[in-house]
Amino acid sequence: MMASWSEKMLQLLLRMNNFHLPGSSLETCLRFEVAGEHVGWVTPGVACILARFPNVFCARGGAVALAADLDSCEKRSEAVGAALQELREHGCLTCLRGWRSEKYAVMARYCDSPLMHMERAATSVFGVKRYGVHINGYSRDGDGNLSMWIARRSNTKQTYPGKLDNLAAGGLAAGCSIKHTLVKECQEEACIPESLAEKARPVGTISYTYEDEEGVFPECQFVFDLELPTNFRPQIGDGEVQAFYFYPINKVKELLVCEEFKPNCAMVVLDFLIRHSVIEPDSEPYYQEFVAGLHRPL
Amino acid sequence: MMASWSEKMLQLLLRMNNFHLPGSSLETCLRFEVAGEHVGWVTPGVACILARFPNVFCARGGAVALAADLDSCEKRSEAVGAALQELREHGCLTCLRGWRSEKYAVMARYCDSPLMHMERAATSVFGVKRYGVHINGYSRDGDGNLSMWIARRSNTKQTYPGKLDNLAAGGLAAGCSIKHTLVKECQEEACIPESLAEKARPVGTISYTYEDEEGVFPECQFVFDLELPTNFRPQIGDGEVQAFYFYPINKVKELLVCEEFKPNCAMVVLDFLIRHSVIEPDSEPYYQEFVAGLHRPL
Repeated sequence: MMASWSEKMLQLLLRMNNFHLPGSSLETCLRFEVAGEHVGWVTPGVACILARFPNVFCARGGAVALAADLDSCEKRSEAVGAALQELREHGCLTCLRGWRSEKYAVMARYCDSPLMHMERAATSVFGVKRYGVHINGYSRDGDGNLSMWIARRSNTKQTYPGKLDNLAAGGLAAGCSIKHTLVKECQEEACIPESLAEKARPVGTISYTYEDEEGVFPECQFVFDLELPTNFRPQIGDGEVQAFYFYPINKVKELLVCEEFKPNCAMVVLDFLIRHSVIEPDSEPYYQEFVAGLHRPL
Repeated sequence: MMASWSEKMLQLLLRMNNFHLPGSSLETCLRFEVAGEHVGWVTPGVACILARFPNVFCARGGAVALAADLDSCEKRSEAVGAALQELREHGCLTCLRGWRSEKYAVMARYCDSPLMHMERAATSVFGVKRYGVHINGYSRDGDGNLSMWIARRSNTKQTYPGKLDNLAAGGLAAGCSIKHTLVKECQEEACIPESLAEKARPVGTISYTYEDEEGVFPECQFVFDLELPTNFRPQIGDGEVQAFYFYPINKVKELLVCEEFKPNCAMVVLDFLIRHSVIEPDSEPYYQEFVAGLHRPL
């Protein structure tokens, strides 16, 4: 029997939270600790590789911690960065092939001061939480009907090439504010002028944790809704997007479960569908499971 | 030093999720199982009391289950109901003093068929999840400024007398749809005509679990926003409310942390503040902690 839309969407949410499922590597993972704070998860295999750098990493009591003399953000970032460069040159960790020279901040909670900075491509090795910004671009016609702008990622993107995406999105690099990142991504990816991008409204977050052969991905996306004038058309900017589509919301809803969407972008749209009453709790059997699946912080 | 608004709100969320905190009775609780499904939590003290009814309840392997011959929704509801009536008459469980003759459905997930029905006042004894509907009533003036209708609960209400509440709210009794419950509560509590109440828009859920001396309360509230004409005034209906106030949204925000609010209603308003961009992630340090605290299903 064909799975229903609801069942397919539930499967997508389970897949994007597979680190929480029985049998995931969570059971065998070691905590990654910096300055006594639990900031990530390391698999035993990775812990083995990191043991080659006893001046940087030390395993103790179910955790991998940084050496005690690395007592500042700068020292930690530098020492870990050097170890990662060496691992990258030896080709030990496949995810480091995706090195981007983009630094992410490492902290236990978003509101905390960064304990260190880490190359974006390495965060999954340490199961460090990554933050990003996603923008739902939508318009409403005279009858109130919703349509949404959907991007198709370039075929040359490192991750999820050719998949459908939100109007604009990007990771939060160390030291950048959420609003700044939003305006920058809107400009770069979709040629949306700053004056328009600034009208985007923050509406919450989604949080989830998945794992694959490249590591553990605990992610939190700050979600924004940007209502666009009906005559506005995004333009291809820096080449991260190959096309923009403007679809009625029910067409977007169908596309979410067709394997065409980058999965976390599908989650951002699902959150939009719930907040904008496109999905209703009396008719959607998994309504509560959907909300729960969009909010599973580690 | 005085705690900030953000810190007080975080404390409220922690208190409303105290069943998840270290030292809660979660560590010693037994699972409450019906037909092999895990539907609640029972403290060892309650398990002891239930052991007086061996024809109804049987403890086994860290769980309290119903007797195997109770093999239908009707049989289970009847047998458990009779045991509860006996306990009520003997005054063994304080929460049963609040008996309301209102039946709640018991199931592992909201989308499942009910496994049994249970008196509302008894659900906390079994740590069974309760569902409800809460309505944010708000208006927007010509400049787009938000104001919200807040109810003050009657001083004779069984729970949280005299506290501030949402415009209307109510528990989901067995067999009632969410929309039906919403329309009914709007009419009964605030004299909102059906034609207006039906305009309420579903916008998600909040989920949390707290415990107190009366038991364990895992709750999920279906949240609705109802935009009201600026000239609309709710009226006192069935006497569950003693007054309605119409406050600018920033005044409502301040009130949330003043111990005046019924705590789960404060959570519903917090969710509103986030979805309507009254709180922004670059300026609210606990933004992500707030979202997480509003979504902690068991």
